Amino acid sequence: MIRTRSSSEIRDASRREVVRALVVGGTATRTELARTTGLSAATVSNLVTELREAGLIADAGIDNAGSGRPTTMLRIDGRGGSFLGIDVAETYIRAVVFDAAITEIGAADVDVDEEWQSIDRIAEALLSAVAQAIDRGGRPAGELLGAGLGLPGLVSNDLRGGASTPGWAAHIRELEERVRPHLPAPLVTANPLQAVGHSEIWFGAARGRSTAVVVNLGTGVGAGIIVEGRVLRGATRSAGEWGHTVLELDGRICRCGRQGCVEAYVGVPGIRHTLGEVDPGHPLLQLHQREFVQGLRDAVADPAVAETLALTARYLGIALSDIVAVLNPEVLTLTGWTAWALGDDLLPAVRAALAERAPELTAARLDLGVSPVRINSVATGMAVLSFEYYLDSRALARRTRPRTDPIPALPVIAPAASPTAPQAVAG
Amino acid sequence: MIRTRSSSEIRDASRREVVRALVVGGTATRTELARTTGLSAATVSNLVTELREAGLIADAGIDNAGSGRPTTMLRIDGRGGSFLGIDVAETYIRAVVFDAAITEIGAADVDVDEEWQSIDRIAEALLSAVAQAIDRGGRPAGELLGAGLGLPGLVSNDLRGGASTPGWAAHIRELEERVRPHLPAPLVTANPLQAVGHSEIWFGAARGRSTAVVVNLGTGVGAGIIVEGRVLRGATRSAGEWGHTVLELDGRICRCGRQGCVEAYVGVPGIRHTLGEVDPGHPLLQLHQREFVQGLRDAVADPAVAETLALTARYLGIALSDIVAVLNPEVLTLTGWTAWALGDDLLPAVRAALAERAPELTAARLDLGVSPVRINSVATGMAVLSFEYYLDSRALARRTRPRTDPIPALPVIAPAASPTAPQAVAG
Ligand SMILES: [Zn+2]
Ligand SMILES: [Zn+2]
Repeated sequence: MIRTRSSSEIRDASRREVVRALVVGGTATRTELARTTGLSAATVSNLVTELREAGLIADAGIDNAGSGRPTTMLRIDGRGGSFLGIDVAETYIRAVVFDAAITEIGAADVDVDEEWQSIDRIAEALLSAVAQAIDRGGRPAGELLGAGLGLPGLVSNDLRGGASTPGWAAHIRELEERVRPHLPAPLVTANPLQAVGHSEIWFGAARGRSTAVVVNLGTGVGAGIIVEGRVLRGATRSAGEWGHTVLELDGRICRCGRQGCVEAYVGVPGIRHTLGEVDPGHPLLQLHQREFVQGLRDAVADPAVAETLALTARYLGIALSDIVAVLNPEVLTLTGWTAWALGDDLLPAVRAALAERAPELTAARLDLGVSPVRINSVATGMAVLSFEYYLDSRALARRTRPRTDPIPALPVIAPAASPTAPQAVAG
Repeated sequence: MIRTRSSSEIRDASRREVVRALVVGGTATRTELARTTGLSAATVSNLVTELREAGLIADAGIDNAGSGRPTTMLRIDGRGGSFLGIDVAETYIRAVVFDAAITEIGAADVDVDEEWQSIDRIAEALLSAVAQAIDRGGRPAGELLGAGLGLPGLVSNDLRGGASTPGWAAHIRELEERVRPHLPAPLVTANPLQAVGHSEIWFGAARGRSTAVVVNLGTGVGAGIIVEGRVLRGATRSAGEWGHTVLELDGRICRCGRQGCVEAYVGVPGIRHTLGEVDPGHPLLQLHQREFVQGLRDAVADPAVAETLALTARYLGIALSDIVAVLNPEVLTLTGWTAWALGDDLLPAVRAALAERAPELTAARLDLGVSPVRINSVATGMAVLSFEYYLDSRALARRTRPRTDPIPALPVIAPAASPTAPQAVAG
């Protein structure tokens, strides 16, 4: 059963390809779409007709450039609907509304450093961010066709204790169930690593590739794994927890409670730890998180910083070689603030460690670099995932009938129980 | 392109499902096949017709047991063809001929400890094993419909130097090209880890599962990775080299030349190393390979052996937790002689280490055990892979026309250059 795909699943996959080709490419003729997607001209034509009826594809003028007769250029109709991507991170929740062309039309952040003591508080913060983003987008909430929620997986700043606390996964599930009824569109969820994987498939280094790995480097680290062009979710939807694989048996204590995890060496606190070992009195140790990373970047000539970066690159290269050995991907792309800030400084030594450590050929043939997707990668990934979900046959079939049901208003959330709760949600 | 599958690919996948259901289940009615495979009755009926014409399916009597009208039971016709699986291991080459029901009909081993100094010698040994296996199978070589060659990947006993030698992969490719023209059927290749993955999909713990990992524990260790029911090959066909991921930064020297690899702790030489640390004068250190593993098994009550097994189980559990964290599989199955001999002794402590180390839920939901496939797992995996390859539309379409081309004889190999070469190939 796992190997056979029904014709409606194939049609779903083909439809996603056509939409993705137009979202990414901007405009295309039917012939160009067939070439880009590898689908037959007849299939493309049928899908275009269906998507036009659903209001998602519009004409974009006539192409006279070719030698043949003029053909109609197509584009995504941004007004055809909107999609919401929500990034529940450790210190903030970001909601971003995109139009159907995946152009950002409204975004809002709410800080949640203190709110993690209570699922209620987090749910309020989340719905507040959503309401603000929808408001800024200027479209009625009822135009939302889908919402995607990126939820932290193993490690988080978390109901005090995180993944090592039994029941953390249940808390996350509870948050999901708490907010679901209050969102004005069907909800899909994934962990942030998987979300970033979706961004890379649509817009980044994994486009058109079969096997790819997207490694996120920030406070936490992890990997979005793409096999046969799809993001691997795993049996309990936590695939990609490369950050908590072992780099050093009985090594540094990781904030997940285990010892020797990759994250304890190449997560931002891990890099601080390394600098502290190199020079315990270094002034950059006063800084944390992004400020610390920025500080490293501004001081690469400082010998202690240079040594720290060399050690970090070695740790990272060895840890990446593990994922390369296991998955042998075509592409490995680095993302997250550490990658964006320090990628150029780290990459040569990372490459050297990979070449030394990964199995023969796997490193030589690997396309390694820093991701071109640098803004809202989790929110974008969740929005495109919700778009894919929407595009499945049944949701779209409902859409092609004229919409007669009243557009639901965004529900008013009960007033916050705590005076320090984030701003009240717009009604 | 990677996401869309053509209708002929779907038909290929469906055909594989029907054949596999009959190979594994023995007999079934069309209705039962539809239920087992999830295919429509019409699809099953079409495929059965096609496979009967190709001589691969025969009637197996009438089923009167049901309440409805009697229906025809079907089975694979073992005489419909044969398939060859070849296991190129470090100390031997084994060739096994299976009939179309994947029943072994002939097998032969040739030792190759000394032959690894020359590709010519290995090629001779390989073709000698093949000729003997075909001869013992008692079917003309021309009845072979496919051959599968499992070739060592990263580490081997190797043209002196193995994977750390640049060009090892080229040597393996050279061996493949050397023997290909002399085999009497189309050849597919994979590494042994991937071969074992195919065995598990057909006959083992991965049957009907989406994501599964088969971990091979012997002299070398590695993993066959199954995602969405298919074996992951990787960009340079070396996915699964988990044995050379890092367990301890700057740890034990591995025979691949790197430091701290998983294999250096849980491969057989690694377990010997651990026993040597526990008790440098232990008598079991006189033994090697299978004899050493058997010796451990026979002496589990010995305190030094017990401590060695406890340490090994901990190393193994931590190393497995890495693959569980990254892939979050439904199933993890252990195979290879260490697993068969020591699995029952190791599993409780491995489970404990996994529960402690792997991300929440991933270990709790994991189906962990020792593989039920215990004989010829590489050769069987390569034979079923060659069967799958044969079943693809074009090969089968050629078959449904009556065969009129003369059956090619197995070629005579040029006499061995060295007097110690294996026995000459049967003409
Ligand atoms: Zn950790
Ligand atoms: Zn190694």
